[in-house]
Amino acid sequence: MIKSTYCDKKQQEFHSITDLNQLSEYKDDPNAFLWVDLHDPSKEELAKIGEEFTLHPLALEDASHEHQRPKIEEYDNFYFVVFYTVKLNTEKGVLEVREIDLFLNKNYLITVHEHPIDELKEIETRWTRNVQQLNWGMGILLYSFLDTIVDGYFPVVDALVDQTEDIEDGLYTRKGGLHEHDTALKLLSLRKQFLALRRIVTPQRDILNVLTNRDNPIFDEQINVYFRDIYDHISRLADTVDLYRDQLSSTMDANLTVASNELNKVMRTMTAASIILMVDSLIAGVYGMNFVNMPELKWEYGYFIVIALMLLLTLIMSLFFRKLRWI
Amino acid sequence: MIKSTYCDKKQQEFHSITDLNQLSEYKDDPNAFLWVDLHDPSKEELAKIGEEFTLHPLALEDASHEHQRPKIEEYDNFYFVVFYTVKLNTEKGVLEVREIDLFLNKNYLITVHEHPIDELKEIETRWTRNVQQLNWGMGILLYSFLDTIVDGYFPVVDALVDQTEDIEDGLYTRKGGLHEHDTALKLLSLRKQFLALRRIVTPQRDILNVLTNRDNPIFDEQINVYFRDIYDHISRLADTVDLYRDQLSSTMDANLTVASNELNKVMRTMTAASIILMVDSLIAGVYGMNFVNMPELKWEYGYFIVIALMLLLTLIMSLFFRKLRWI
Amino acid sequence: MIKSTYCDKKQQEFHSITDLNQLSEYKDDPNAFLWVDLHDPSKEELAKIGEEFTLHPLALEDASHEHQRPKIEEYDNFYFVVFYTVKLNTEKGVLEVREIDLFLNKNYLITVHEHPIDELKEIETRWTRNVQQLNWGMGILLYSFLDTIVDGYFPVVDALVDQTEDIEDGLYTRKGGLHEHDTALKLLSLRKQFLALRRIVTPQRDILNVLTNRDNPIFDEQINVYFRDIYDHISRLADTVDLYRDQLSSTMDANLTVASNELNKVMRTMTAASIILMVDSLIAGVYGMNFVNMPELKWEYGYFIVIALMLLLTLIMSLFFRKLRWI
Amino acid sequence: MIKSTYCDKKQQEFHSITDLNQLSEYKDDPNAFLWVDLHDPSKEELAKIGEEFTLHPLALEDASHEHQRPKIEEYDNFYFVVFYTVKLNTEKGVLEVREIDLFLNKNYLITVHEHPIDELKEIETRWTRNVQQLNWGMGILLYSFLDTIVDGYFPVVDALVDQTEDIEDGLYTRKGGLHEHDTALKLLSLRKQFLALRRIVTPQRDILNVLTNRDNPIFDEQINVYFRDIYDHISRLADTVDLYRDQLSSTMDANLTVASNELNKVMRTMTAASIILMVDSLIAGVYGMNFVNMPELKWEYGYFIVIALMLLLTLIMSLFFRKLRWI
Amino acid sequence: MIKSTYCDKKQQEFHSITDLNQLSEYKDDPNAFLWVDLHDPSKEELAKIGEEFTLHPLALEDASHEHQRPKIEEYDNFYFVVFYTVKLNTEKGVLEVREIDLFLNKNYLITVHEHPIDELKEIETRWTRNVQQLNWGMGILLYSFLDTIVDGYFPVVDALVDQTEDIEDGLYTRKGGLHEHDTALKLLSLRKQFLALRRIVTPQRDILNVLTNRDNPIFDEQINVYFRDIYDHISRLADTVDLYRDQLSSTMDANLTVASNELNKVMRTMTAASIILMVDSLIAGVYGMNFVNMPELKWEYGYFIVIALMLLLTLIMSLFFRKLRWI
Ligand SMILES: [Mg+2]
Ligand SMILES: [Mg+2]
Ligand SMILES: [Mg+2]
Ligand SMILES: [Mg+2]
Ligand SMILES: [Mg+2]
Ligand SMILES: [Mg+2]
Ligand SMILES: [Mg+2]
Ligand SMILES: [Mg+2]
Ligand SMILES: [Mg+2]
Ligand SMILES: [Mg+2]
Ligand SMILES: [Mg+2]
Ligand SMILES: [Mg+2]
Ligand SMILES: [Mg+2]
Ligand SMILES: [Mg+2]
Ligand SMILES: [Mg+2]
Ligand SMILES: [Mg+2]
Ligand SMILES: [Mg+2]
Ligand SMILES: [Mg+2]
Ligand SMILES: [Mg+2]
Ligand SMILES: [Mg+2]
Ligand SMILES: [Mg+2]
Ligand SMILES: [Mg+2]
Ligand SMILES: [Mg+2]
Ligand SMILES: [Mg+2]
Ligand SMILES: [Mg+2]
Ligand SMILES: [Mg+2]
Ligand SMILES: [Mg+2]
Ligand SMILES: [Mg+2]
Ligand SMILES: [Mg+2]
Ligand SMILES: [Mg+2]
Ligand SMILES: [Mg+2]
Repeated sequence: MIKSTYCDKKQQEFHSITDLNQLSEYKDDPNAFLWVDLHDPSKEELAKIGEEFTLHPLALEDASHEHQRPKIEEYDNFYFVVFYTVKLNTEKGVLEVREIDLFLNKNYLITVHEHPIDELKEIETRWTRNVQQLNWGMGILLYSFLDTIVDGYFPVVDALVDQTEDIEDGLYTRKGGLHEHDTALKLLSLRKQFLALRRIVTPQRDILNVLTNRDNPIFDEQINVYFRDIYDHISRLADTVDLYRDQLSSTMDANLTVASNELNKVMRTMTAASIILMVDSLIAGVYGMNFVNMPELKWEYGYFIVIALMLLLTLIMSLFFRKLRWI
Repeated sequence: MIKSTYCDKKQQEFHSITDLNQLSEYKDDPNAFLWVDLHDPSKEELAKIGEEFTLHPLALEDASHEHQRPKIEEYDNFYFVVFYTVKLNTEKGVLEVREIDLFLNKNYLITVHEHPIDELKEIETRWTRNVQQLNWGMGILLYSFLDTIVDGYFPVVDALVDQTEDIEDGLYTRKGGLHEHDTALKLLSLRKQFLALRRIVTPQRDILNVLTNRDNPIFDEQINVYFRDIYDHISRLADTVDLYRDQLSSTMDANLTVASNELNKVMRTMTAASIILMVDSLIAGVYGMNFVNMPELKWEYGYFIVIALMLLLTLIMSLFFRKLRWI
Repeated sequence: MIKSTYCDKKQQEFHSITDLNQLSEYKDDPNAFLWVDLHDPSKEELAKIGEEFTLHPLALEDASHEHQRPKIEEYDNFYFVVFYTVKLNTEKGVLEVREIDLFLNKNYLITVHEHPIDELKEIETRWTRNVQQLNWGMGILLYSFLDTIVDGYFPVVDALVDQTEDIEDGLYTRKGGLHEHDTALKLLSLRKQFLALRRIVTPQRDILNVLTNRDNPIFDEQINVYFRDIYDHISRLADTVDLYRDQLSSTMDANLTVASNELNKVMRTMTAASIILMVDSLIAGVYGMNFVNMPELKWEYGYFIVIALMLLLTLIMSLFFRKLRWI
Repeated sequence: MIKSTYCDKKQQEFHSITDLNQLSEYKDDPNAFLWVDLHDPSKEELAKIGEEFTLHPLALEDASHEHQRPKIEEYDNFYFVVFYTVKLNTEKGVLEVREIDLFLNKNYLITVHEHPIDELKEIETRWTRNVQQLNWGMGILLYSFLDTIVDGYFPVVDALVDQTEDIEDGLYTRKGGLHEHDTALKLLSLRKQFLALRRIVTPQRDILNVLTNRDNPIFDEQINVYFRDIYDHISRLADTVDLYRDQLSSTMDANLTVASNELNKVMRTMTAASIILMVDSLIAGVYGMNFVNMPELKWEYGYFIVIALMLLLTLIMSLFFRKLRWI
Repeated sequence: MIKSTYCDKKQQEFHSITDLNQLSEYKDDPNAFLWVDLHDPSKEELAKIGEEFTLHPLALEDASHEHQRPKIEEYDNFYFVVFYTVKLNTEKGVLEVREIDLFLNKNYLITVHEHPIDELKEIETRWTRNVQQLNWGMGILLYSFLDTIVDGYFPVVDALVDQTEDIEDGLYTRKGGLHEHDTALKLLSLRKQFLALRRIVTPQRDILNVLTNRDNPIFDEQINVYFRDIYDHISRLADTVDLYRDQLSSTMDANLTVASNELNKVMRTMTAASIILMVDSLIAGVYGMNFVNMPELKWEYGYFIVIALMLLLTLIMSLFFRKLRWI
């Protein structure tokens, strides 16, 4: 699906382009900003756009495949950017990353993505609203674009952080349960999601760094501080991701110690109970022996004395083990 | 709440400004230093200050939100700095970090913070006391500001270090208790607090590095060594935080080994006790058998001999296991 | 085995060279591109080629030995490149890496390899098909070469990733089995294969970086973006390898916690079962004592009451331990 | 305590200065080298020296406090260096680090330290002995100073290394003891001491690097190789510290495995012993049943046959478990 | 022991120098290359050589002591290099590193070593054989020297790698043994040897890097590629060492999991056996009770029925536990 918006810089007006043949007309017009959005384009559509805008085949190839690394590449006549949006699929509990590819120069922005991107509507709104910034050129559209996308990372990271904190809190409050198995796997899964995020966030920080530093001829100078603002946001994300990636390793270690400790408790209980019961059983066994000459057996209250002895020993040993905190 | 202090450089006098409309008057006066402190400002107050001092909207946006990264950013007409104070909430045992945002140039310092900052009073005292350093410009106020805040980190780090050392000492003195579970969680919590500190301290060291190195037109050259002094303090903090972050991982490993060892001890006790009691029980069981022809049963002292045998075996096995140090 | 192809740049024709004496004729012809492929050459063949093309003895020595590091080295009259192909031997489940050595300059490419390289046929097809790119010089042949080889890494890495994911999934679904031993060893083996891959991929990324950046006199400028494309692919591989190398360590830790947890479960079962059975046994033992005066023994329903008591205690204790989730 | 030595460069003579008022006289004399050593100076003494030599208040402040980071700082008229000596307190088994602060320029060296520094005497001896090197200026005194101190690190590091090696050797020779607890704590303590050393050694290496590289106007060029020699020594120390810091982590892991293995052994012993004794007990229990019709009970040698059976089973099971190496 | 060889560049002849007084004669002769090898020299010999060749006292000091770091240092009139040979003492199973110190400039190479170095003979052979390379100056001798020594590292590293692989293979094949203790210690020992190697190999790579890159006036330009070749070899060694250092940590973790798993198996066996035997014992205990009214006791086949019941229960429980794979 192709959706194209054309901005007349002088008139400060925005028009939808319905006839794609008009694209060639606007694409070199110094007064026009052109945004062409391709949602799940066919090979032919992509090829046509490529020809129209003389996009390099290698960039087109990257745009037609998924799972590129986030990157910015300079070609003769345009920049090519690969960026990602993230969503947390709360049903499956997995991170969903969606690639979006951008071709841009002074006059146009072409965006390519296989899946629908929820942020596009808001991006358009932001762009078309701030007409006074149009003199700043294409940069303001790219800024709106990247800023909106990066803002979408925060709820995702916050959700992962919350899950991590919940598990850690669980380590403190739960005592005596048997959830180390599940905890270990949840921690493992979270760690993986932080790693996956990091894999996207870190190179995207590099992209923003390039946009901030480079003396590029496409963007107005005033736009630099805007890219620095996104750089700042994404740096914060990277810090958070690194913090929790590190901390999760320690939490896994702590969980193992908790598991080990639970075992200690169980074994102490067992040891104490076994000793008490075996001592009593031994006494019963002794008086179950069939010796002819066992004087106690003939005592009037022998049986009751032995029962009392058993109870007494049980009590003493119980107190002893209780004092050791084994039971 | 807005609080504003004006310093007349020539007269070396300090005045409180009560009428905020005077701000515009002083803000460009080359003879004046202006400090405007905004405590939990409303959106309108912030916007008004922004307009008055022509602060960039992106910096204002950062100032109005919490949880920015510590950073220093150069704008056309001012520097924007995000810094943090830390407190240890001894009741809850958690680290409390509070953001403070600074706008500054040759003539003014504007500070914005949501929570009350205890250090402000001392900062003002230090600034107004050293009148002979006023020629050095705004730098001396910024120095007083940052130095006072960084000095406030030391008691916090010292407290965390003390807690860590106490837990480690506990590993040595405690033998036979069952505290590995709690120790693991305390270590985990401490490690997290060191990580959280590191997340603030490291970028703040970068800020001081920028202030020390840059040939900036705002600060007098003589002030550089003062910023280097703060840089030095914060480097020391960073070293301490890194040292304990690393050491805590080892302490967690040691704690796991201690837990594992405790289990060894318990199981040795249990093994020894089980074997002794089962041997005695077996003997009792043997003489509880109902064979018609069991000569020992008819011996006059058979019963007493068997009891003596049990005691003897118990003694021998106890000594054996004691020698193995199993009981 | 020597196989040589000669490309007449002007005529845009490709010829097989059968008489190796022709090599000297073509190797300096500015209109010719020469590709000489040596499959498991004898020492004499290699020496002859070396003499013909005045290759440096150190480069020849590297070419005649296996297990060099991937590298690119500049000599006076040629570049020397060591590169690797990888295959996953699905039977043995091991990674097979095969070295391929390249000598190249403006006029020729000489490739040396001990084992057959499956990709060679495709490389030749790609080269001979795109005749319009012949003006770009030898670079396009090198690009076809490296691109085809690097494309071959993806299925290998994907297979390793799949195996890793399968094991992780196994951690979640399997509950109660006893596969930690095998899992640990499979994880260890996978980690080693990722390490082995990393050892090849990382220096090969450096090679591509050199090819991308260097203002070299051999390759046409237009070819740079093509090498950057391979660099991009190989960077992605390196990222994946690093991600899983890191994650596998955590998975190993999680597996250990799972193992530890399984033990907890077993010991809880044992503790519960022991206590129940020992209590019942103790009661039986008590009524197996031979005291003359044991009133219960003479009760009409004493036996049945005791059996009922045992059952009742067993039930109560079972419910208790069930509630603790020990059985 | 202030101790001051004055060297007359021309006469190549050394004099003790007793009247501190002479300091001002010598401090600018181009023919004099002045060494002022302040041992635990009072605030007033330090202030007086500061005034006399116009030392910057920030450097003086650092000199009057303990626990600075090792560093070198350039001021307008002098360099300020913080360095540490280390001692191993063999009684308490802890590392004692002592700070020493140096102010130096072409004409003087001022050293400040709170605790007595044993190396001072030797430093003075070395300085006053090599009169032929006096032309090289203050550098030779600083070299003697730092070299003597760094030489003092080696016995300390060697002692820590020895302790580490002893513990490792203990892992190999000890089999069956129960020392994992103590070993874990000793390893933890050693690791901490290596970390503490590293915290001093690494920045001190940076100091020497600065002294080696900088084209500084204070030191004669010929002195550079001497500082490089100290740099070399301290690099070696840093390498050793890093090596053992890393290795100690592995040793802790190995110790945990040893502990885990000890537990395996204990549990195998217990399992084997339990099974043997329970089987025998079961047989005794069977023949302790009170059935009216149990033919074996009436056999003449039934009892002896059963005892023999028990012994036989015990023997067979013992051999079986011995073969498994469980007992 | 001093052994000296003199090469007459013009005549391309090599002579042994027997009279050490001739050294001074040759050492400045532009037509001569001089190699002086000092094996375990006395202090006097070293001092004499130092005086003869005006070697700096700091370099001489390093040469007279063991355990320097590998390094290259430039002095006014010569380069000083510290290098190491390694041997694997197969009897003791330890790595033996031997230091060798080199002084070199355009005219001479002086080598100092305490222990005999096996490679010296081969080095001399290589030097004296390739007379056509004599124009390249001293570089070719240094190349022969370092190349021969570095070639000696490969069998050592290969042996360590083989040992590591053997232990890993052992983890896979061994099932049910009790070798985790020994495995852990072997892994620890191997890891230490890799660390020790790394400590030598990494700085030696730096030395070669210096030799490759520096525009030095001593070596002919053509020799650079030769040093690059050694650099390449030593980089490969460094890669291997790093790979196994990393992998050994994982192997240690896997070994711990294996140990943990072995324990699981033992405890499952014990739990199953205990439950079966205790159930049977309980039944026997019940029929050992002395109640007057126990109808089963009087049944004709009561005893046999109970025995059959026990066998049946044993069978059922055995099958159950077998199905759980506990026994
Ligand atoms: Mg794409
Ligand atoms: Mg995707
Ligand atoms: Mg944003
Ligand atoms: Mg925003
Ligand atoms: Mg871990
Ligand atoms: Mg912002
Ligand atoms: Mg803020
Ligand atoms: Mg905050
Ligand atoms: Mg301070
Ligand atoms: Mg201060
Ligand atoms: Mg750890
Ligand atoms: Mg660990
Ligand atoms: Mg080769
Ligand atoms: Mg190979
Ligand atoms: Mg490709
Ligand atoms: Mg491709
Ligand atoms: Mg591509
Ligand atoms: Mg680990
Ligand atoms: Mg200071
Ligand atoms: Mg001090
Ligand atoms: Mg101190
Ligand atoms: Mg020294
Ligand atoms: Mg010395
Ligand atoms: Mg560890
Ligand atoms: Mg030295
Ligand atoms: Mg030496
Ligand atoms: Mg040595
Ligand atoms: Mg070699
Ligand atoms: Mg060679
Ligand atoms: Mg080579
Ligand atoms: Mg580990």
